[in-house]
Amino acid sequence: MPYTDFIFDGYRKRLGELEASDNPLSKGVAYVEGELYPIHEARIPILDQGFLHSDLTYDVPSIWDGRFFRLDDHLDRFERSLKQLRLRSPLDRHGIRQKLVEMAAKSGIRDAYVCMIVTRGLKFIRQYSPDEVENNLYLMVQPFLWVMGEELQKTGGSAIIARDVRRVPPGAIDPTVKNLQWGDFVRGMLEARDRGANYPILTDGDGNLTEGSGFNVCIIKDGVLRTPKRGVLEGVTRKTVLEVAKANGIECHVEDVPVSAAYNCDELLFVTTAGGVMPITKLDGVAIGNGEVGPISKTIWKAYWEAHYDPMRSFAINY
Amino acid sequence: MPYTDFIFDGYRKRLGELEASDNPLSKGVAYVEGELYPIHEARIPILDQGFLHSDLTYDVPSIWDGRFFRLDDHLDRFERSLKQLRLRSPLDRHGIRQKLVEMAAKSGIRDAYVCMIVTRGLKFIRQYSPDEVENNLYLMVQPFLWVMGEELQKTGGSAIIARDVRRVPPGAIDPTVKNLQWGDFVRGMLEARDRGANYPILTDGDGNLTEGSGFNVCIIKDGVLRTPKRGVLEGVTRKTVLEVAKANGIECHVEDVPVSAAYNCDELLFVTTAGGVMPITKLDGVAIGNGEVGPISKTIWKAYWEAHYDPMRSFAINY
Repeated sequence: MPYTDFIFDGYRKRLGELEASDNPLSKGVAYVEGELYPIHEARIPILDQGFLHSDLTYDVPSIWDGRFFRLDDHLDRFERSLKQLRLRSPLDRHGIRQKLVEMAAKSGIRDAYVCMIVTRGLKFIRQYSPDEVENNLYLMVQPFLWVMGEELQKTGGSAIIARDVRRVPPGAIDPTVKNLQWGDFVRGMLEARDRGANYPILTDGDGNLTEGSGFNVCIIKDGVLRTPKRGVLEGVTRKTVLEVAKANGIECHVEDVPVSAAYNCDELLFVTTAGGVMPITKLDGVAIGNGEVGPISKTIWKAYWEAHYDPMRSFAINY
Repeated sequence: MPYTDFIFDGYRKRLGELEASDNPLSKGVAYVEGELYPIHEARIPILDQGFLHSDLTYDVPSIWDGRFFRLDDHLDRFERSLKQLRLRSPLDRHGIRQKLVEMAAKSGIRDAYVCMIVTRGLKFIRQYSPDEVENNLYLMVQPFLWVMGEELQKTGGSAIIARDVRRVPPGAIDPTVKNLQWGDFVRGMLEARDRGANYPILTDGDGNLTEGSGFNVCIIKDGVLRTPKRGVLEGVTRKTVLEVAKANGIECHVEDVPVSAAYNCDELLFVTTAGGVMPITKLDGVAIGNGEVGPISKTIWKAYWEAHYDPMRSFAINY
């Protein structure tokens, strides 16, 4: 039995049940100004500065098989991001937690992409001090989104190192403060598409790897895993990957990783909440290793998904 | 009579009339999915990628004293930005032009901040080719917004050169494609506020000036005007300023401008549609020149606003 079946078999079954549901929230539910809406009907003010200047921060935890995964890690990071941008959530941490659990339970979605966004609100920071501005909170619980679908998870996806675009440097926009300013990633995704690949990796413009369009990058060479330290999101999935890799005896380093390391690796992984551990088997049109998902990738994949059932890392939602 | 009165006297009178209006569109009007709404009631789908990944472009023309100013220059740039991002406006150029004129006429707003936005729409570019995605158009006509109000226009504002943040480089996000990814500008505005100033100027991180939070920068020294060439928006206001400066015999250069030039200038101007020609008389807490608005600044200010009545540059709206 393929090592991925313990995840996808159950998922497909639950997805079928969800798609057959006539619950109006089963396609997704959004929290806007204190009310819940079916997600395709949810609307925000056009004057929200989150739209008009992307002045916001967000975070994306997930629910897997009815269990909220590492919600507190996401809330920790979210609170750090809010503080950095001088934003205040209208609901406190406890309130957000309760509301998200309520939304999951009401929607019946057991595998969910969850999103929390705090925007500056209706007033522009050019005219007003952050202290005198009322911020807005939006929450969403949607059926799980896959950055990489089931088939590619098994065979591995293809990537490029973007050459037409570099990552925004941390001195301009800090990538550790999760933001939706994806202009560089959009350029990278278009370049990947033009070059016949699934995903881009962006460099820092100084010869180092950073990250891709919504995922951290892990390079495996001679049994050692390395992932870029600077100019990237400090991913919760990456954190889990480092934990389970170490638990499986794999040496890991978070450090500067030169671009050349991607071309000389044995295995390549992209890691993110919405997709988990995504094996990449082709870079710039050339096979990585023997072109198949490697042994360390499989070990990490399996351990990553097993961690979703660890009561230290997840809790069951009462549906 | 102060050189600014020919603009502000009429403006204050028209503003008073607008504020006394009981037209529900007089506070602003928005075009969303083919319908017009009072701007404070206008809402967009929470799933719009313009919100969820700031995947959009926009442009901001203005209406002054009932005349649309350089609308075709803004539409030219908007069309270039759309092409660069592989976006298509649901209304063509002629349709946008007609709709904006209709919105102005219906609202009765005679001095307006006008905004056109095309977003990627409801589908994420990670999953879909740009060709198969339906983009969204939003239009807004609001009472004129002042980046710098009347009093500061007369005395001059204060600025800092930001030291905590640099401008996003063009190799990451191209500033000539007008975007709402203002993370670096927001940091700059917070730093300016913390340091007791009105506005930030951002550097390119390599010793050159770029632009500020929504405006181009013009440095005047020994009668010569210089403005940064690279890593900045190619502003329509800047274009007008260069035209009227040259017409007044002022030598102008669009070129790399080192940071030191800002500290050694005779006069400093910020220029943008929503504010026009904004004199800056203090930099990093130190007076520029004698601390008053300089003679070249006054000449440009006057000529810039006079240009709004030039039938080659503006046309009257039929209210």
